[in-house]
Formats: sequence, C-alpha cells, structure tokens
Amino acid sequence: MTDQNSPLPSASLSRLALYLRAAQELEQRGVLATSSRELAELAGVQPFHVRKDLAYLGRFGRRGQGYAVALLRRELTRSLGLNRRWQYIVVGLDLLGQALLKADWGEEFVCVGLFDPSPQQQGRRLDVPALPQPFTLGQLPPVPRTLRVRPLSELADFVQKQAVDMAFLCVPTEISSHTAQQLQQAGIRGILNFGPALNPPHLPQGGHEENDTIVEQVDFQVSLQRLAFGLLRQSIPQLTPTLLENPT
Amino acid sequence: MTDQNSPLPSASLSRLALYLRAAQELEQRGVLATSSRELAELAGVQPFHVRKDLAYLGRFGRRGQGYAVALLRRELTRSLGLNRRWQYIVVGLDLLGQALLKADWGEEFVCVGLFDPSPQQQGRRLDVPALPQPFTLGQLPPVPRTLRVRPLSELADFVQKQAVDMAFLCVPTEISSHTAQQLQQAGIRGILNFGPALNPPHLPQGGHEENDTIVEQVDFQVSLQRLAFGLLRQSIPQLTPTLLENPT
Repeated sequence: MTDQNSPLPSASLSRLALYLRAAQELEQRGVLATSSRELAELAGVQPFHVRKDLAYLGRFGRRGQGYAVALLRRELTRSLGLNRRWQYIVVGLDLLGQALLKADWGEEFVCVGLFDPSPQQQGRRLDVPALPQPFTLGQLPPVPRTLRVRPLSELADFVQKQAVDMAFLCVPTEISSHTAQQLQQAGIRGILNFGPALNPPHLPQGGHEENDTIVEQVDFQVSLQRLAFGLLRQSIPQLTPTLLENPT
Repeated sequence: MTDQNSPLPSASLSRLALYLRAAQELEQRGVLATSSRELAELAGVQPFHVRKDLAYLGRFGRRGQGYAVALLRRELTRSLGLNRRWQYIVVGLDLLGQALLKADWGEEFVCVGLFDPSPQQQGRRLDVPALPQPFTLGQLPPVPRTLRVRPLSELADFVQKQAVDMAFLCVPTEISSHTAQQLQQAGIRGILNFGPALNPPHLPQGGHEENDTIVEQVDFQVSLQRLAFGLLRQSIPQLTPTLLENPT
C-alpha cells in the first residue's frame, strides 16, 4: 500500500483532478457507490492507477465494496485545495487572455484583476466571470462584472491590498520571462503559464518551486508534438533510431 | 538500459519535446556537445530522466563524453515526427481559436482550413500563419494568408481533397463531444482538444486511441487544479486525509 506521506507523483496529481470530475459526474447522476473499474473508465485511465493514486489520500472504501461517491468527491475536493476560494489575476489580455476570461474554471476560482504591459490594453474594461451567488431560496441571476485593465506598475500595490493567490500569464513570448519575474517580485506565489517554459530559469513540466513561486505550464506546443508523435507511431509502430543502425 | 522497443511512457514523451527545445537552444548558441546534466537543467528535469528517456531513442553519446548537440537535435526531431509537414485545421473560431491562429507552433505545422458550427462565424476571413518560405539567397518576407471559415457540412469533402493530419478542437463544451465525432467521421486521425475531456468516451490524459483517432488533451482546468494543489501543499506540507483519522 502506498504511504500517504510519500510525495505525490506528478501524473497521479493530474489523475486526481480527473477522478474528481468523474466523482462529480457520478454524484450528479445520483450514484452512491463506485469501483476502481468504473472510476478508471470515467477518467480514462487504468484501474490499477485509481487504486494507487487514491492510496495517497488515505484509506478509501473497503475491499470488495468500492468507494462511497460523496466521500470520495469531498476528499478529492479537499486534497486538491478546492474547498476554498482562490483569487487570480490575468496578465496579458490579448486574444488568449480574453478567451481565458470566458472559460469555466469552477466557482472556487475568482478573477480579481486584469493587467497588461501594453498601453493599448490599459484602461479597457472587460467582462469577467460573475461571482458565485450565495445560497438563497430563489435562484439569483449572476451579476455581470467588468474589471479595468491595469498597468504592471500597479501590480505590487494591488497584491498588497488584495489577496491574489495566482496569476494566469499569457503575454507574448518575448516578455514572458521578464513579466514572470515582475509577478514574483510583486509577491505572486503561483503562476499558470500559457507560454513556452520560462527562461531563466527553465521550468519543468508539472510545476516547480523557485523562490517560493510555483509555475505550472500549459504548454500547447508540447501537446501538439505529443499528438504528432502519436500519429507517427500509429503508422510506424516502433521507434526506429538511425543511430542503432550504426552504433559506435 | 531501457529497451527502445518498449512503449515510450507518456511523461518521457513530454520530456523529449523539452529536450528538443533545449537542443535547439544549444545549437543556436553554437554549443557542439552537451551532458545529461546540462540538458536536465535546460529542460527543468532530473539528469536520470534524461538518460532514461534518451535510451528510448537508441544509443546516444558515449560514456563520459556526453551528447553531440546536432545529432541529438536531429534524432529528437525525427523521433517526434517533426521532420515532415503536418497540416491542421482549426475547429471553433471564438476567442480561443483565434488566439491559436496567432500562436507559434513551429513551421512544420501548417494551417490549411478553418471550420465553425456557428453561422455567425461562417464566411468570415481570418488571418492564418504565413507559409514557411523556401530557402533562397535573400530573406523573403512571409506572405500573409487568410482563410474562410467553413461550415462543418463541408468537412468530409474538404478532408478528402486536402491532406488534413489533425484538428485543433476549441468549440464550446456543450458541443465538443458531438463535434469530435463529426471530425472522426470525416476521417481526421488526430485531435488536439482544448476543452474538457471528450465524453463519451472519456479520454485519458496524454492521448488515447479510439477507432484510430488519437485525442491529445490540453486541459486548462487540470493544470489550474495542479497549481492550486501545489500552493496548498506549500502551506500544508503533507496530505492529511480525514479518513485516516477514523478508519473503518
């Protein structure tokens, strides 16, 4: 059995997010109990992964009886830190940044500020996702919100006054490393970077701690190259290294 | 030593893309030879990963002498399938799709078509990345191109006439599974999906083959949850499962 004090492998962490999505779906369907097999199918992974990954969270379920869906959902939510509110800013409001403002991140993530290094963007007011409504008897419609795009010179002051947990970084590649440093200096502890890996330092996939700032990469290009490799492999079933033909 | 005929693990594949980026950078700097240590630092991974991952490609370098940068770059390029041209279409031209048209995917990836299920988008002409210029004595400026956004009803016919290798799928979540099926039926073999995992079937991270169509996920939400987990872990160094307090 996996020791829950050992570090959680990066791939397991990603799968926990997929199990959470599966558990939420099962709960919505009114399913009370589930199995490694069903979770694996919903998450698109192997059943042994489910058992191994959930072991990091402690002892779930009983042998032969599976997992209680509500408990599983609650525990995954808590372990992933999704039982609290996370406040983010978006840095870079070109097309990608604007697209991120339309995405559904889950209501635990709240946009509190917009920043852009370009004077053309500064001062614009953009629609941001509505705040989650408190529980009431009637269903309140979400209240539309707009935020003003600020210059980065206001960042340090802003972070001091507002609790900013993380920044979505989507500025042009040429300035992304410099901007990341500015975010770090302003006291931002978490960066979700939508550009190529930051340089310097080069940052690993799957997050990296550097001076207490964690950077998580969303690297479109790596994903594209993975797809190209997959398609290539489909036509040529195994890697056929040229070097092997003439080993020295 | 790793057998190069064994399947390449998903995490190794992502790292190969990072080594390629590192090798390209070293080559641009005029560096001729490199080490596992240097590659690891540039890619932001551990040196033992470098040795293990490159073993999948065959025998590189000699013990104590490191890797020849040009050879490494060439072999990684070939293994990842980046020594050929890949033709892609973009399906869904809202903000995210438009942002993808501005991204630098590398000149081996060429946009050949635009599709959108919404009549509001159809018929628009959008700028797409310029075609790579053939080698000439002088530096030719890239030729600007626009493409017309087509309805999905034209897809099957289009795929028959053009060699389409892959589709970037960035339609709204509600229709993404249905649209993925349409792509598959039209004969698209590779999908880079920017929405939540397709359903049904649920697709694993890191690609999945289903009726010969490979889907590679770019899942923003999983990345965000990974970041939240990292930040949480920084303040609470170990997972503290509630279930362990009261094991049954």
